[in-house]
Amino acid sequence: MAKKALILIADGTEEMEFTITYDTLVRAGVECTSANVQSGGSPYGSVGTSPALVVCSRGVKILPDTTLQPLQAGPDKYDALVIPGGLKGAEALSQSTEVQTLVRQYYEGNKIVAMICAGTLAAKTAGLGHQPVTSHPVIQNELTTLYDYREVAVVVSNEVPGKGTLVTSRGPGTAFPFAFKLVELLCGKAKSDEIREPMMFPPGIPYPY
Amino acid sequence: MAKKALILIADGTEEMEFTITYDTLVRAGVECTSANVQSGGSPYGSVGTSPALVVCSRGVKILPDTTLQPLQAGPDKYDALVIPGGLKGAEALSQSTEVQTLVRQYYEGNKIVAMICAGTLAAKTAGLGHQPVTSHPVIQNELTTLYDYREVAVVVSNEVPGKGTLVTSRGPGTAFPFAFKLVELLCGKAKSDEIREPMMFPPGIPYPY
Repeated sequence: MAKKALILIADGTEEMEFTITYDTLVRAGVECTSANVQSGGSPYGSVGTSPALVVCSRGVKILPDTTLQPLQAGPDKYDALVIPGGLKGAEALSQSTEVQTLVRQYYEGNKIVAMICAGTLAAKTAGLGHQPVTSHPVIQNELTTLYDYREVAVVVSNEVPGKGTLVTSRGPGTAFPFAFKLVELLCGKAKSDEIREPMMFPPGIPYPY
Repeated sequence: MAKKALILIADGTEEMEFTITYDTLVRAGVECTSANVQSGGSPYGSVGTSPALVVCSRGVKILPDTTLQPLQAGPDKYDALVIPGGLKGAEALSQSTEVQTLVRQYYEGNKIVAMICAGTLAAKTAGLGHQPVTSHPVIQNELTTLYDYREVAVVVSNEVPGKGTLVTSRGPGTAFPFAFKLVELLCGKAKSDEIREPMMFPPGIPYPY
């Protein structure tokens, strides 16, 4: 059965981090659902029965697949929960009590919780325990006393038996390795290798990078 | 005065190539305008007076900034014309007579014409002359007899005095170096270096790559 990922989004989300993750997972056969955590907050309003448009950090306007309905968004429905960065978007996501609850549910439910850039703020606001993480340097000071902070492209933390896997990453420049790591965890290394080839990374790019 | 770029989009456009280019140019201070080349063709219809939503190649739905109005889209209005890939989107863009005319106008007007992935089809349909190009391998056979085809990440062709600069690239995996090259051509190498740093590319990534 196809794996499923729930990717959260809000006004101010970093559009490259969102799009690279969504697109790369879809290429691997993962069913992606994007959910707008805000409802009706966009100046563009909603489109029929669709969720409100999101205005991303550099002005790209994305229509999410749905709104966040916490009762339909739990770890029984999806294999991975993804929280992109973009400072304003990540603040909105990490300050949402619904998102904080979901992060804990996925982590306690032994699923994948993935955060990139300022998205790692949600590990702190959800109260996830001390473990290895990374993030964009802009929020590093908020994390160093609580976590084993590492300055590397992608950190996979799954040392607590029975708990979930926390995957964290640094910014748009690490969004591809972040997405490939999620594919590897959800679908295996062979699938990650398979989808990488037609994306035409130059031969000089180390992989994984 | 700020540089300006017109980025075309249609149903089936590769959302990573579109978003990485748009976002990276905005980070450099380039005023980006995305224009939907199709009008009313989306199953989602239009949003008020806004253009129709675009459904990209892996399902991300983007609302462009405007529709393509050829009389307002010429090389007197923008410094660069960008044509992203995604096979279905690139076919729609390259088969549009309005787009073909714009490509010739920008090229004849000594501006930047940039094409990535299957977007390079538009060089052929617009009738641009023999010069160095690259593309996604999926359309390589359509270009090899007409052009000096090169299998490298980014090709900059500006050998004809008084004509424009044709920048071509290969796919999502080369979208960052493609976007940085456009920043370099529009705003200079120092600006490209400046915006790259906070994007957090790992130290092992060669630059330019």
